[in-house]
Amino acid sequence: MASQQFEPPSGTRDFLTDVLRARERVFAQIREVFERYGFEPLQTPAFERLETLTGKYGDEGDKLIFKILRRGEHEATGEADLALRYDMTVPLARVVAGYGSRLPTPYKRYAMGPVWRADRPGRGRFREFAQCDVDVVGSASPLADAEVVCALTDALDAVGVPGYRVLVNSRRALSGLLEVYGVPAELGGGVLITLDKLDKLPPEKVAAELVDARFLAPDIAEALVTDLTAPDAVERMRTVLKDSEAGRAGLEEIGRLLDLAAPKVGRDRIAFTPSLVRGLDYYTGVIFEVVAEGMPGSIASGGRYDGLISALGGPDVPACGGSLGVERITGLLGDDAGDVHRIDVAVTVIAEDTASDVMGYAARLRDAGLRTEVYLAASRKLAKQLKWAADRKARYALIYGASDKEAGVVTVRDMDTGEQAQVPTAELAAHLTGRCAPSR
Amino acid sequence: MASQQFEPPSGTRDFLTDVLRARERVFAQIREVFERYGFEPLQTPAFERLETLTGKYGDEGDKLIFKILRRGEHEATGEADLALRYDMTVPLARVVAGYGSRLPTPYKRYAMGPVWRADRPGRGRFREFAQCDVDVVGSASPLADAEVVCALTDALDAVGVPGYRVLVNSRRALSGLLEVYGVPAELGGGVLITLDKLDKLPPEKVAAELVDARFLAPDIAEALVTDLTAPDAVERMRTVLKDSEAGRAGLEEIGRLLDLAAPKVGRDRIAFTPSLVRGLDYYTGVIFEVVAEGMPGSIASGGRYDGLISALGGPDVPACGGSLGVERITGLLGDDAGDVHRIDVAVTVIAEDTASDVMGYAARLRDAGLRTEVYLAASRKLAKQLKWAADRKARYALIYGASDKEAGVVTVRDMDTGEQAQVPTAELAAHLTGRCAPSR
Repeated sequence: MASQQFEPPSGTRDFLTDVLRARERVFAQIREVFERYGFEPLQTPAFERLETLTGKYGDEGDKLIFKILRRGEHEATGEADLALRYDMTVPLARVVAGYGSRLPTPYKRYAMGPVWRADRPGRGRFREFAQCDVDVVGSASPLADAEVVCALTDALDAVGVPGYRVLVNSRRALSGLLEVYGVPAELGGGVLITLDKLDKLPPEKVAAELVDARFLAPDIAEALVTDLTAPDAVERMRTVLKDSEAGRAGLEEIGRLLDLAAPKVGRDRIAFTPSLVRGLDYYTGVIFEVVAEGMPGSIASGGRYDGLISALGGPDVPACGGSLGVERITGLLGDDAGDVHRIDVAVTVIAEDTASDVMGYAARLRDAGLRTEVYLAASRKLAKQLKWAADRKARYALIYGASDKEAGVVTVRDMDTGEQAQVPTAELAAHLTGRCAPSR
Repeated sequence: MASQQFEPPSGTRDFLTDVLRARERVFAQIREVFERYGFEPLQTPAFERLETLTGKYGDEGDKLIFKILRRGEHEATGEADLALRYDMTVPLARVVAGYGSRLPTPYKRYAMGPVWRADRPGRGRFREFAQCDVDVVGSASPLADAEVVCALTDALDAVGVPGYRVLVNSRRALSGLLEVYGVPAELGGGVLITLDKLDKLPPEKVAAELVDARFLAPDIAEALVTDLTAPDAVERMRTVLKDSEAGRAGLEEIGRLLDLAAPKVGRDRIAFTPSLVRGLDYYTGVIFEVVAEGMPGSIASGGRYDGLISALGGPDVPACGGSLGVERITGLLGDDAGDVHRIDVAVTVIAEDTASDVMGYAARLRDAGLRTEVYLAASRKLAKQLKWAADRKARYALIYGASDKEAGVVTVRDMDTGEQAQVPTAELAAHLTGRCAPSR
């Protein structure tokens, strides 16, 4: 039998002890921050009706949806009626539409969990991966945008992501940019997609792509790229965007977000970034990305998307939100050392007729909150069981032989030093909670 | 548009704030107990390769598997290549087979998460529901069975499930039962399925079904049902089972489990129950179910299944385990009152030019660990914002008007009493953490 049959399906992962604990800790830290901001948790099913998802992610996105075959007599049709969750936003729109006024206004919700996309698996790209989203539905206030940015960056701080920066722009500012540089309206979308590559490609390559692939006049391409990559690009943009109504509106909303968020985020960590585009069409106001030193791509992103909830079938309400790239963040942090979750006490069983007694000691220690394991293999040899205790990284081992039983004591072995002490059975739990406490 | 389009798919649920928090609390309590027993977490993907699952759950089970359509050019074939997780045991077998000696021996793992079954949805029966499993792979020791029973009942205690009892039996004892009553071997399986109904149907109905549907001789059916429902059924069984080798082995393993688990579980809460059957074929040793007063069916169950891991494609290792019926448990406990998660501080925004200041106060309070929300709607009227604070069940509201700003203070309103105090801005966080602390 090929061993591949025991691998998880392509693009998915089994999470075992230490890695899973490190992930869970990250999720718990993020959740704690989101709760502190008053976001409320929402958990929707792993699958939605197929028609809820199709057409919401563009043609390319539709191809990446995992579809679930109809069941029973309908299975033979080869048709699908359900599909795995592709993101957290479409289910949010469904819930907002379905619950309406039963939700608080605005509805501030967070969602954390897996989504599934049939992407080609690759380094750091998975078919099952976690998303952590915060969204504010029903508020047009710039305070809402600022709250989203602060909650996400606060979460990055809580998790311990070092050296990140928040790049801020606005769809209106980008519209103004296209306008003042004289980019024909029908070329705008493609031009923005290419400009988005300025953080990855040399300026001359981007200028060439604007001309060759986006059919932009060479002088306009040249001017755009030169101004956006100039050392004083921000000042140039602040000046030229004033010539456009959209540009002025964009500068104003960017300024408001910076005013409100910068004191918390740190003035040196958040800045207007005129070349930031964000691929998704649905943004209508401010947009942002969080980048970290030495990391390609972004570790968080989001923006205002006032039309999306209604486009997804919900009511016409303003909304903004953002998402943490958890897989990238956990990748930055490395695995758990395992030390946090050491076993406190390993209980040996060296004689069959003491099994009931040692189960009783284990129960007392667990009731006292100590992580306690009982030896479950067949050997009754102490040396073998102490090796097991060492393998399990136990702090202490309990030994309970005939002489211990006679004397009414249990032998407690410090697994780090090898020192042994005989402890009266009645004092066992107090003794060990006392010794385990300082290191916990 | 029909509003049904906004419902979650049939048999699934959206979990909103309070219900979700109550569920998460139950999961956290269960996890804490499993960790205390030294079980290690395992999380496998939501889907497995289809061939990993098919044929593992019997014909009826196979029909309930959610299958995922192949993608891209293969989608048109109407074939499936992946399937949603149906339980936690088959993925465990795959992991044990794949990781082999890289896992601890024995491998004590817990798994908590959703599984999916295309059952007809009904009251308390869902297509997406949670399972919480503990299993010990690689130990034939009765201590392992006892650890599983103790971990599950300890978890029920932690969650606060009242008045439960643990019913214990053994597949060997059941084999012995069939043998000593002279049930023909080929009728054994069907007879056990019918005997399992003794807790739901009157004895005469069970006897009739044994004759009519299971083709058992009337005198044997009569004797079996009479003895199993007698007030002294346990004593009768302890006597008659001694006449069979399987029966004696069964009594012995039941006795060992009771010896080891009863001191922890409570002697009045765990008992040999000769009529307990458990539907699943794969059990080989002790079996158990936990039932609670006024609850139909079981809230936890499990047993020893020494042949299953190899039958599922893994190595030939002994194993035992059990599962908590989380949906039933959360049903027993009711929803969260919501009070635990009150907002500590609701921050009003009564003048646009103070928005930056109040964001700063909110940041300080959050940094101090207080759950803090900022008013995000458009109104600048204080009365409306105080109503919002009351709706959000905030303990305190912050008010920061022109006169407050001039005086260098923030007005703190106790939302329960309506009393207001003016607090110097520099002391705000200390003031409010002090006042919120006692009630947290």
